[in-house]
Amino acid sequence: MSHTAELIAVGTELLLGSIANTDAQTISKALSALGINVYFHTVVGDNPQRLRRAVEIAKGRADIIITTGGLGPTCDDLTKNVLAECFGKKLVYNEEAARRMEAYFRKLHPDTGKMTENNYQQAYLPEGCVPFQNDWGTAPGCAFEAEGVHVLMLPGPPSECSPMLRHRAIPYLSQLTDGAIASRSLRLFGMGESSVESLLRDRMNAMTNPTLAPYAKEGEVELRLTAKAGSEAAALALIAPAEAELKEQFGDKVYGVDVPSLEWVCLELLKKKKGLTLSAAESCTGGLMAKRITDLPGASAVFKGGVVSYTNEVKENVLKVPAGLLEEFGAVSEPVARAMAQGVRALTGSDLALSATGVAGPDRDDRDNPVGLVYVALAWEGGEHVRTVHAAGGRSRIRTVAASHGFDLVRRYLEGLPL
Amino acid sequence: MSHTAELIAVGTELLLGSIANTDAQTISKALSALGINVYFHTVVGDNPQRLRRAVEIAKGRADIIITTGGLGPTCDDLTKNVLAECFGKKLVYNEEAARRMEAYFRKLHPDTGKMTENNYQQAYLPEGCVPFQNDWGTAPGCAFEAEGVHVLMLPGPPSECSPMLRHRAIPYLSQLTDGAIASRSLRLFGMGESSVESLLRDRMNAMTNPTLAPYAKEGEVELRLTAKAGSEAAALALIAPAEAELKEQFGDKVYGVDVPSLEWVCLELLKKKKGLTLSAAESCTGGLMAKRITDLPGASAVFKGGVVSYTNEVKENVLKVPAGLLEEFGAVSEPVARAMAQGVRALTGSDLALSATGVAGPDRDDRDNPVGLVYVALAWEGGEHVRTVHAAGGRSRIRTVAASHGFDLVRRYLEGLPL
Repeated sequence: MSHTAELIAVGTELLLGSIANTDAQTISKALSALGINVYFHTVVGDNPQRLRRAVEIAKGRADIIITTGGLGPTCDDLTKNVLAECFGKKLVYNEEAARRMEAYFRKLHPDTGKMTENNYQQAYLPEGCVPFQNDWGTAPGCAFEAEGVHVLMLPGPPSECSPMLRHRAIPYLSQLTDGAIASRSLRLFGMGESSVESLLRDRMNAMTNPTLAPYAKEGEVELRLTAKAGSEAAALALIAPAEAELKEQFGDKVYGVDVPSLEWVCLELLKKKKGLTLSAAESCTGGLMAKRITDLPGASAVFKGGVVSYTNEVKENVLKVPAGLLEEFGAVSEPVARAMAQGVRALTGSDLALSATGVAGPDRDDRDNPVGLVYVALAWEGGEHVRTVHAAGGRSRIRTVAASHGFDLVRRYLEGLPL
Repeated sequence: MSHTAELIAVGTELLLGSIANTDAQTISKALSALGINVYFHTVVGDNPQRLRRAVEIAKGRADIIITTGGLGPTCDDLTKNVLAECFGKKLVYNEEAARRMEAYFRKLHPDTGKMTENNYQQAYLPEGCVPFQNDWGTAPGCAFEAEGVHVLMLPGPPSECSPMLRHRAIPYLSQLTDGAIASRSLRLFGMGESSVESLLRDRMNAMTNPTLAPYAKEGEVELRLTAKAGSEAAALALIAPAEAELKEQFGDKVYGVDVPSLEWVCLELLKKKKGLTLSAAESCTGGLMAKRITDLPGASAVFKGGVVSYTNEVKENVLKVPAGLLEEFGAVSEPVARAMAQGVRALTGSDLALSATGVAGPDRDDRDNPVGLVYVALAWEGGEHVRTVHAAGGRSRIRTVAASHGFDLVRRYLEGLPL
């Protein structure tokens, strides 16, 4: 049986534009993976009448309603009260929820650790529900079935909503579904979105199962293949030939399938080549290369460190870039990028070393180099390579694209591809 | 007269969770500034029947409907066709829209520059509408009034939606409104969300104009005061006494009002103290301090650079942390944090220097230090200070909170506050 879900986010802060409804994105992705259709998202403020109206509408067009937000004492448990009322449910005290909240409070406030009366209100849940205990905050969520509709309530803060979705809601929902959606994401670096789209456009429109959708993000393109079938394995089997065809077509531009990022691929490749280490000398990227690789747990096994050389002084004194190079070619130049990579490699004793020097904007540099021009270099034992990048967009995008070019050099070097 | 708007976003990619509905956030913020109430956001897929239903519901509860997405050839101009139909409008050819699209195409594809028949379809707009010409993409938007409802249609991609909102939709909407909303945001560092909330709870509930709302984000709290009045100046006058009271109450925990970030405040303070420069030695933050300050244009005037010392080797060889300290106390220790800050200060010749060494997780370090323990140090001419931080949460939050503590030390030092 095919299910249709509606997401209702409760929170005036969403209607004021203080935050974006990222919970809806997270949940929609998960529902899509379960093969549950989502036809509507609704956002409503902290207002009982309007929430009631939204729920009445949702009851008429969905058999799964998932709410986010409006739990907990700051909003008087609005969502729980309204949803219980709309489905004729009483609220009953849940001992375990109360105990868990107490434990959470003790951890958070080891000095006092006492909960207020307000907090205990959160331990009341609709009768007969499946409680979703909250190990990541205080307000518990829950699920119940009434009038042919499954109602799930999740907390609003993404740091609570996401783990409760994964550990509580998805197990509940997967019992309701048969059939599955599977998807595979090919990640490409080194081709513009419009080139990829124009190459794929006709095929994309002709495909129905799997479907093919391109997503562009800061210099990268993701190609997502999604198929529906009786089981996940059957859905994946539908995807396989299309995936092979795309890999053939885009060749070494495809840096991975279902991988989180280019730097993750680099980290895995470096780990595989036991003993190989990396460092980075960063001018315009200002620490972003280091930050991106050290975002990943386990980076310390391969990343030795780096230097952010935001002035010529640091380039000369720390990275030992010859003053003559800086003088003759300027900080934003191929020879300086090369010397920076060699310098940080010598300084840290790493096997590979990256560097980036360029103009992130908003203004041209003192030698009138254009915004977006970045030299990205990779140095290794006995050699190096400099890539000239012309990145479009604002400061943040230029920095991101430059750092990605660095990781692309590392990946291509380690995979033996032409740089 | 007070207006009520509903936002309808059209796009299956939103319901699949491929993207978040950031347009709704952007537009909601702008409407709030204009004093227009927003009671509902709706998201619907590329489906005429369901869009029609969503529009019928919106007609019954809003007098301004703003759609995003579903314009342009990839979705057969779904939104324009359905909205025109719902309000009994014919579509008529708009010569100027066609001319502008031709010009945009020539710019984008200087080689061919030819539009297809599909593209010309976009030049059809509801009769009698105000066209919103699109200087940032192809599909024009528009606005019309019918049955007492103002309908505005904007393109979906944020890079088109945002400028069209600012340059076309806001001028149109401001003619409809009188009165204004103003808001001011106090930003706090150094107090937990729950402490702030429990201090403010009663007052918050009692306040109506201005209202007071707290938002917590990665170790920071934002307190937003919002008031409605006949003019922006009158609304700000309503806010002023409450703002003064909060500043009194939270004292030097308030690091700024309507400022973008803690590092921005540091950059401004450093710029004011002409000649003062900063550097950073980062272990567990892995370049994040450098990245955050160099995200800001103009950082090169005050930030000299830094070292990411992800191994003891780099701490010893580059930062000159004595081997004996590393041996005796371990890399995650107060003496090493102190030596790292002194080391990077000597290396770069900066006036101030930050350092961070700690355990970002997911695992304890080799000396069994707990995840979340970070030593953050500030060094200056003739002195230094180390702060011991116990950060909760995952790897990303721990790194962010640690970096923020560093910037908090810089701010407090420069403002002459106790560290």
